[in-house]
Amino acid sequence: MNMQYQKPKGTRDFYPEEKQARHVLFDKFRALALSYGYGEIEAPAFEYLDLLTAKSGEGIKNEIFVLEQRGTEKFGLRFDLTVPVARLFIQKQKELPKPVKWFYVDKMWRYESPQKGRLREFYQVGAELFGSDKPEADAEVISLAIDFLLRLGLKKDQFILKINNRKLLEGLLMGLKIKDIPEAIRLIDKSKKISEQEFEGELKALKLTATQITAMKRLITIKKPVEVEKLNFLTDAAIDGLQEINAVLNALKLFKKDRYVCLDLATARGLDYYTNTIFECFDTKEMLRSIFAGGRYDMLIGNFGGEPTPATGFAMGDATLQLLLEENGLWSTQRRPLDYYIVVIGQKAKETAFELCQQLRTKYAVDIDLTGRSIKNQIDYANKMGAQKVIFLGDNEVKSGKATVKDLRTGKEKKIAFAKL
Amino acid sequence: MNMQYQKPKGTRDFYPEEKQARHVLFDKFRALALSYGYGEIEAPAFEYLDLLTAKSGEGIKNEIFVLEQRGTEKFGLRFDLTVPVARLFIQKQKELPKPVKWFYVDKMWRYESPQKGRLREFYQVGAELFGSDKPEADAEVISLAIDFLLRLGLKKDQFILKINNRKLLEGLLMGLKIKDIPEAIRLIDKSKKISEQEFEGELKALKLTATQITAMKRLITIKKPVEVEKLNFLTDAAIDGLQEINAVLNALKLFKKDRYVCLDLATARGLDYYTNTIFECFDTKEMLRSIFAGGRYDMLIGNFGGEPTPATGFAMGDATLQLLLEENGLWSTQRRPLDYYIVVIGQKAKETAFELCQQLRTKYAVDIDLTGRSIKNQIDYANKMGAQKVIFLGDNEVKSGKATVKDLRTGKEKKIAFAKL
Repeated sequence: MNMQYQKPKGTRDFYPEEKQARHVLFDKFRALALSYGYGEIEAPAFEYLDLLTAKSGEGIKNEIFVLEQRGTEKFGLRFDLTVPVARLFIQKQKELPKPVKWFYVDKMWRYESPQKGRLREFYQVGAELFGSDKPEADAEVISLAIDFLLRLGLKKDQFILKINNRKLLEGLLMGLKIKDIPEAIRLIDKSKKISEQEFEGELKALKLTATQITAMKRLITIKKPVEVEKLNFLTDAAIDGLQEINAVLNALKLFKKDRYVCLDLATARGLDYYTNTIFECFDTKEMLRSIFAGGRYDMLIGNFGGEPTPATGFAMGDATLQLLLEENGLWSTQRRPLDYYIVVIGQKAKETAFELCQQLRTKYAVDIDLTGRSIKNQIDYANKMGAQKVIFLGDNEVKSGKATVKDLRTGKEKKIAFAKL
Repeated sequence: MNMQYQKPKGTRDFYPEEKQARHVLFDKFRALALSYGYGEIEAPAFEYLDLLTAKSGEGIKNEIFVLEQRGTEKFGLRFDLTVPVARLFIQKQKELPKPVKWFYVDKMWRYESPQKGRLREFYQVGAELFGSDKPEADAEVISLAIDFLLRLGLKKDQFILKINNRKLLEGLLMGLKIKDIPEAIRLIDKSKKISEQEFEGELKALKLTATQITAMKRLITIKKPVEVEKLNFLTDAAIDGLQEINAVLNALKLFKKDRYVCLDLATARGLDYYTNTIFECFDTKEMLRSIFAGGRYDMLIGNFGGEPTPATGFAMGDATLQLLLEENGLWSTQRRPLDYYIVVIGQKAKETAFELCQQLRTKYAVDIDLTGRSIKNQIDYANKMGAQKVIFLGDNEVKSGKATVKDLRTGKEKKIAFAKL
């Protein structure tokens, strides 16, 4: 087949079985988010490129699919929904009762090298909460994400949420007198994906001193608040950040989700707009990319020209989630079954057969021959399509007003009046 | 606000009310298509540009949103789903039992001048049927589309499906000895949107003779098979095409849909890949753009390198459909109601309040204060969000194990044990 007759690299086709599996997944998220009082929103696939790149940092710029420019405007496909949702919020900020709680289920695009769990086109489910700076707000979006995993059948020992705080990280980096803090945060974010040697190399490239490097290597291993308190380079900002983490951990108790969460100073998040709490959820074996991630971005709305508004949220990609569910035997694809297949025997029965078919379709999933094929081939097709029952309709059935119905699972046949089907 | 903080021209934001309305709409289509035995499929948002432009004709080329080239590959956002679905079919052609019946609900993109019912980003619902050249196949996809309109509450006198046949049109144009038949078909398609003078001007530009022009002007007014039969420039192809139309009209009787359909020789369709039956559905007043359209494209699969396979289908855009429903009082937006809002009175009640909230969320849509605001402000918010009931939870309630529940519609209050909520 010619190249152009294949799907683009890093994208997926969904045939009915896979599409149905995704419906089941997303409907569960929808039901859950609605029960939490979140309303579903949707934004265009593309936005002004300036909006997408304004506050998200250098890392993402090269990953945006840009549309060829026509006229004076330049657009890019969205890489997440936090930025578009911030735009939606600002547009109606004055009239909306606060807090605003929104969720979404939608496609995103990133120009990346496709690998396990990382695609160029993928779905994200997520939620954003505008208008509360309280730890309960962070705890709620985390609780929603964790409840979704639990509702999919995952257990406590299969995933772990790692929580951190940008203010704490920045405060510690200031305490270490590190100059390029955004770059240092990007390196911390990267540290999990590279070896210790590579991490050290990157720190040297940033021109850190030996003392700073030792402190950084220590820092990314910390997993307990008490260990943070012992550090000799604490600043006021760091202490503030640590208090925020403790407040969120306490608020998570209200949602009974503290048992799924631990502090991890190596959690940094790649996007620039986060300001306080940040979190990332992983499979316990850490074989996969992160399952979901998010955090608080209290400056974004103000930076985009809105009335300054605290905000927090999370997003979960479908590719890694599917891998996690598959690994735990929780993913299944199944085509919706066909309730009836009507086998038409002879041209005379056709009119009655189609009339019955259309009537049954008001209640059931029903198929009927559209190819004029033989009875044998009609039955073969019904079997291949997984029809549960076959209705035979010929002259005799038309005369008697009773159809012959065969249950393909049991093989049993019955005569049933048309009206009783 | 800066330009980049607005949505791109010709796109839409969906806030919860509008998103919910679209869910209601699409879920109805899904249920109907499943009852007809169609399986839902999904394709990537972008495809190789060569695939999109190969067989769709000149008209569409300028309307494709092209992605900036990176590497050697050039991609464009899909403008419809017929072409991607053909690719999906070819990929699994050998293993799929025929006929293959698929539907979709998805977004498409066209770079057009936005106007009423025409957007740059829009949804389409549609169905494609591969592997039957029988008139019952065309009739079934038409029946599915019409049943969708009926299920939305539309009546017979509110819409009309106009049917035609490419073979008939081409046969008549051959009979008229017109040389550039694809261009003449595009002009016929255009004729409804321009005045008679303009149509005549365009025909002259095509260098048609006075006799040809007169015949063309007559041709586009024809609405009955008997009038076609009277034409003095019939060819064998035209007669074939007319027989195909009559066969489809007969098959539509099997689906009880013939009453919604009439012949119209001015229906031509803009896309090049159609080969036989073509159709377009309009509001009876003809105030709007077409509601849905489609036809048979028996050459496309073979042209794309697949085993030659007959195919037919339709697509319906959501923008015009919404206008039609609005005009007939059948469109409503409504946010999912909040079942409960929990008003937390004092810090001590907080733990119990959140516990109750999380329990209730397994059955209901429930919200709770995340901002630490006053009781009055909590009640105000509950009212603004349209909560049906408010639960008051303070020290007294925690001690008694009974919550005070106020129905915001009736104003009545009750004490109810937590476990009975």
